[in-house]
Amino acid sequence: MREQDGATKAPGRVGDVRRRNLALVLGRIGPEEPATRAEIAAATGLTKASVSSLVAELLETGLVDELGVTRAGERGRPGVGLALDARRGALGAEVNVDYLAVGVVDLHGSLRYHEVAETVNRGRGPNDVVAELSRIVERCVSAADDAGMTLLGGGLAVPALVDPSRGTILNAPNLGWRNADLAPALGGLVPGAPFGVVLSNEADSAALAELWYGRGTSLGSYLYVSGEVGVGGGLVMGSELFSGPGGHAGEVGHIVVEPTGQRCSCGGRGCLETVAGQEAILAAAGITDGGSTTAARMAALQASLDAGDTQAITAVERAAHYLGIAIVSSARVVDVSAVVLGGHFAALAPWIRPALLSSLEAFAPGVIAEEAVAFSELGTTAALRGTAGAALRRALAAPYELLA
Amino acid sequence: MREQDGATKAPGRVGDVRRRNLALVLGRIGPEEPATRAEIAAATGLTKASVSSLVAELLETGLVDELGVTRAGERGRPGVGLALDARRGALGAEVNVDYLAVGVVDLHGSLRYHEVAETVNRGRGPNDVVAELSRIVERCVSAADDAGMTLLGGGLAVPALVDPSRGTILNAPNLGWRNADLAPALGGLVPGAPFGVVLSNEADSAALAELWYGRGTSLGSYLYVSGEVGVGGGLVMGSELFSGPGGHAGEVGHIVVEPTGQRCSCGGRGCLETVAGQEAILAAAGITDGGSTTAARMAALQASLDAGDTQAITAVERAAHYLGIAIVSSARVVDVSAVVLGGHFAALAPWIRPALLSSLEAFAPGVIAEEAVAFSELGTTAALRGTAGAALRRALAAPYELLA
Repeated sequence: MREQDGATKAPGRVGDVRRRNLALVLGRIGPEEPATRAEIAAATGLTKASVSSLVAELLETGLVDELGVTRAGERGRPGVGLALDARRGALGAEVNVDYLAVGVVDLHGSLRYHEVAETVNRGRGPNDVVAELSRIVERCVSAADDAGMTLLGGGLAVPALVDPSRGTILNAPNLGWRNADLAPALGGLVPGAPFGVVLSNEADSAALAELWYGRGTSLGSYLYVSGEVGVGGGLVMGSELFSGPGGHAGEVGHIVVEPTGQRCSCGGRGCLETVAGQEAILAAAGITDGGSTTAARMAALQASLDAGDTQAITAVERAAHYLGIAIVSSARVVDVSAVVLGGHFAALAPWIRPALLSSLEAFAPGVIAEEAVAFSELGTTAALRGTAGAALRRALAAPYELLA
Repeated sequence: MREQDGATKAPGRVGDVRRRNLALVLGRIGPEEPATRAEIAAATGLTKASVSSLVAELLETGLVDELGVTRAGERGRPGVGLALDARRGALGAEVNVDYLAVGVVDLHGSLRYHEVAETVNRGRGPNDVVAELSRIVERCVSAADDAGMTLLGGGLAVPALVDPSRGTILNAPNLGWRNADLAPALGGLVPGAPFGVVLSNEADSAALAELWYGRGTSLGSYLYVSGEVGVGGGLVMGSELFSGPGGHAGEVGHIVVEPTGQRCSCGGRGCLETVAGQEAILAAAGITDGGSTTAARMAALQASLDAGDTQAITAVERAAHYLGIAIVSSARVVDVSAVVLGGHFAALAPWIRPALLSSLEAFAPGVIAEEAVAFSELGTTAALRGTAGAALRRALAAPYELLA
């Protein structure tokens, strides 16, 4: 059926139908392969006149760029190619327990500038940490500005239960933060950004980064598990983040894997985090120098593994064994059959992988195939890419917000 | 916006708009509180003339009954009350490891006839068991027929992974059945039923029975866990069954709760089923007489509990402890905060409940509140009610199928 697209447009206000059609046309314009107006008309069922008028407005938003006459169509006249404009981007930022990460992602999905700083954030107040983050953000925003980029919005990912609508951290046990209102700070990160800066859970954002830019692009449905000081997780099903009725699904780090195990920061006992988080692995590996940072001790662990140290290898394999149990139990609950691993699980992949595959086979033969276990290649930029990507998607879903 | 409802009606074929409007009007007619045509017009935005015409067709389907002039409206003339017709119903049936259950549920949600037979189904072939089930079905269908009821469809629930679209059991480990094609048998259970007979997972159907007729009506989102010989589960979120990307979500019985535990029928190790299924509890309680049926031994367990037998109490409390771990892990993955327990977990509620609450508090303080732990009151009729209810909902969603 053909959509009526112009009738409801009123001066100073974009009508509902035109809003939908702007997003519809924009959805046919990708980052690389240029699309012509004629192709868009054929794909959407809109008239060529309507498409031309809608494209004119999209060019006005700055989200879309004309690439000049690029090629002859199979039939008819050659068209002007349209593509998303890589000069539009969004800021992504992450506060984790032992690092801060900031970057800019453009509409082509490229990470244009980024900076990762090792810091000790546990025990510091949120305002102090966000002030330090802001200085890194300023450098990235300034670099983007110098390159002629416009930032549409941004996001801040934290290892915490969050309320994105209010911009508050509900509970970040590994940072020691509870009920922290970050709304004022968020507003200042990308001044004037039309699509704002949104707070998110770090593992959820990293899970989405895998979907859009990483190992999840071909999967569609998978469990993402990220090892940091804490262990976070996110569920992607049908190419969307699944949040569950309470909004905080995917908390794989607090699945109980060892009923007689250690107390956990969540108040429970024997959670995955108590046996597979960085502190747990370092303790089991005997790397206990409290004076150095977690990151420094993780580097020491890596060196021990490279040297074939038995205690280090056993510690990592034990973590992988329990990681397998948590993945199996998650798969039983939601019936996903693929997993993407990030954080130190990815950094330690050569040691994690064999023990993990054994564990999966022992506890649920046939449920997660060997080829369905993927390791992230995004490193410490995963969460910031995801939260920037979410901001870009907010813009692409509502291009009319950019019209005067 | 007002719907156009008559334009697309063609002789011998009910058009799309009219189909939608028939279902829309039917959705305003409940089992008890009678609705008038005027009320339906006001609630749906359809004209009174359209509603009258649609109601005439709904009366023709037999799903709706006129109750005579029942009351004066606040304004205007008194109307004729319309309600769902309790003479329309569906058959529900369940094959479990140690019983068969059959019943008829009417459009008011009442269980009109039912019969539960203790049988030993493990090790027998599916054809043999379904033949025995068919004889019970015949008695129930005949009783419904004698009472002037018309059966619209039905369902068969089994403790198995199923493919409902093909009517096949993929794997029923506790029955010893694999790849069993039940499609021919299903067709014969309710001959001529316009909405067919559909195969389902027993715990999924029981979970839906709680939503429609039981403890889940006020919850909307919850985890259902049922203890039989196996331990099954179903997830209801936003008042719908959640099946997950692979179609078999909610397999709580195979969450790993004891990594060093027993081998499980699924091929894994330490699953909830190995410590909280009926056989596991009976073994731990020392009730091991292999000559009597599981049901008889469960009765013996009940007697031991009533007599204060320490070994029996410890066995049930141990099961409840592990049940708590599986519930906590499920809650972490999907973020549901309520649970409904069925099967022997409900039958043994006085002994299960305190140990379960302790376990929930120990492993995830504050996640599942005490008042969010409910016990089913549907007993062995839960799954059959759910599968009959699903058949009734198929009819209510497509009333036009009943028009000539």
